[in-house]
Amino acid sequence: MNKLVIVGTVAFDAIETPFGKTDKILGGAGTFIGLAASQFNVDAAVVSVVGGDFPQKYLDLLSNNNIDISGIEIVKDGKTFFWSGLYHNDMNSRDTLATELNVLADFNPIVPESYRDANVVMLGNLHPAIQISVLEQMHEKPDLVILDTMNFWMDNTLEELHKVINRVDVITINDEEARQLTGEYSLVVAARKIQELGPKYVVIKKGEHGALLFNDDNVFYAPALPLEEVFDPTGAGDTFAGGFVGYLAKSNDFSFENMKKAVIYGSTLASFCVEKFGTNRMENLKNKEIYLRLQEFKNLTQFEIELS
Amino acid sequence: MNKLVIVGTVAFDAIETPFGKTDKILGGAGTFIGLAASQFNVDAAVVSVVGGDFPQKYLDLLSNNNIDISGIEIVKDGKTFFWSGLYHNDMNSRDTLATELNVLADFNPIVPESYRDANVVMLGNLHPAIQISVLEQMHEKPDLVILDTMNFWMDNTLEELHKVINRVDVITINDEEARQLTGEYSLVVAARKIQELGPKYVVIKKGEHGALLFNDDNVFYAPALPLEEVFDPTGAGDTFAGGFVGYLAKSNDFSFENMKKAVIYGSTLASFCVEKFGTNRMENLKNKEIYLRLQEFKNLTQFEIELS
Repeated sequence: MNKLVIVGTVAFDAIETPFGKTDKILGGAGTFIGLAASQFNVDAAVVSVVGGDFPQKYLDLLSNNNIDISGIEIVKDGKTFFWSGLYHNDMNSRDTLATELNVLADFNPIVPESYRDANVVMLGNLHPAIQISVLEQMHEKPDLVILDTMNFWMDNTLEELHKVINRVDVITINDEEARQLTGEYSLVVAARKIQELGPKYVVIKKGEHGALLFNDDNVFYAPALPLEEVFDPTGAGDTFAGGFVGYLAKSNDFSFENMKKAVIYGSTLASFCVEKFGTNRMENLKNKEIYLRLQEFKNLTQFEIELS
Repeated sequence: MNKLVIVGTVAFDAIETPFGKTDKILGGAGTFIGLAASQFNVDAAVVSVVGGDFPQKYLDLLSNNNIDISGIEIVKDGKTFFWSGLYHNDMNSRDTLATELNVLADFNPIVPESYRDANVVMLGNLHPAIQISVLEQMHEKPDLVILDTMNFWMDNTLEELHKVINRVDVITINDEEARQLTGEYSLVVAARKIQELGPKYVVIKKGEHGALLFNDDNVFYAPALPLEEVFDPTGAGDTFAGGFVGYLAKSNDFSFENMKKAVIYGSTLASFCVEKFGTNRMENLKNKEIYLRLQEFKNLTQFEIELS
């Protein structure tokens, strides 16, 4: 059976949107990626760190979704990473109200021994040095390494970021970050330049405008499902990544054709994530619901034009 | 054979982009719609007005593309409508440098007698009173009426705009305009509210982010082809509309399933339009090129996920 290692934050979020606000709730890239990937019944472990203030019920929630948590270090006298954000009316922009690194400041990831032979590794958005440390702990080069990152690391740790980019097979990045990383406005040109940095596959996330998958001269596009209402976008990008990597780890086929399906699964799961605050929608997601939404994606995108 | 009446501007454009600038060249919504629709060998007439300064070669260009120009009035002592625009570096925003209405200020459209029985009518972006005048001249209600409009008419002639919206089957509108018309941010909700105003089908154009087609609970999405370089976006929306209506007029099938194909044809033709200044790319477009690009659209969007 395939094994998947996910490194990413497990955190507290406090979110305010036009629809309401939350106290500190479960959040973090590792959490969202793990919950999405767990839909595919892969043997997945999350590597992360939390403080003594982190409730056991949240750890249980991950365990109950068949996510191995032996790689989540608990720093008893530390506090859990906390992020707070306020979304504007259009839900496409947000202000960060607070970022308290807490135990994340000294995070030294330890991949559990039983997962050091995992064939798929998902590097969630973190300091590039942490991402590289995870790769260094693997017994051999994994079959597939996927990297998520953000503009903060481009601004502050570009040299280290380039090192990790050079070692991965797939990078997921948003459109503005792709432009920042390459200095190119055209996403087609930006994706080509990113491939020259190392990753054979480039996924450019465009939020409500969907996602593009590039590989050599191939390009595939998955829209975001048009929704009546986006309740809380927090975690949508990570859920997309989790669906993407979860499907790939499950199917063990890393071809472009199969990555197209993975992108569709990622978009499908992300469309659920935004329907409720935080992880609420993802915690209780049923296979039947995913099935029906995949059908919606087919209806949304598939057409018949005979080319003869 | 189906007949198509297109009302829209035939004009001079002067365009400046980061790639260069033009003198007065052929432009106008009627021109772009006509050239795109002409790809489908439908019997199409453009109803418009130009001044005595309009070169015969431009009229010949339309005629040579099998567009009936008997409905293009030539006001010998008048000047042709002129628009000038400057595109910014991202090509998604532009400044209008000049708008000289000239003969358009007194435009009184006359549909040629031989086209008053046309079964498809495309109302290009113009004053709603002009659009209604064209509908009034038809012998009977056409099978399909498509309306394009813009925020200017919402700001200045909203009551008349509502009257024409109530009389059409399809409206094409961009995302910001759909939001302005309905006061709804969600395009799903906006499209439903627009359907309540009359049109059974709503096409929301999102520029580089593609287009959405709504009808009752059905929704279909056509991406824009990701391009290395957008040379000149002028006319892309009209070319989309022309491809959409041209395909529908040709196939004479106004079902949702067929409109999906029409949206793909519209996106395909628009992807050519932006490759060169003005109408340059559309004037010499070959069937073979369209065929190859449709294949690109298939590759871009089609996937195989078995739902069992």
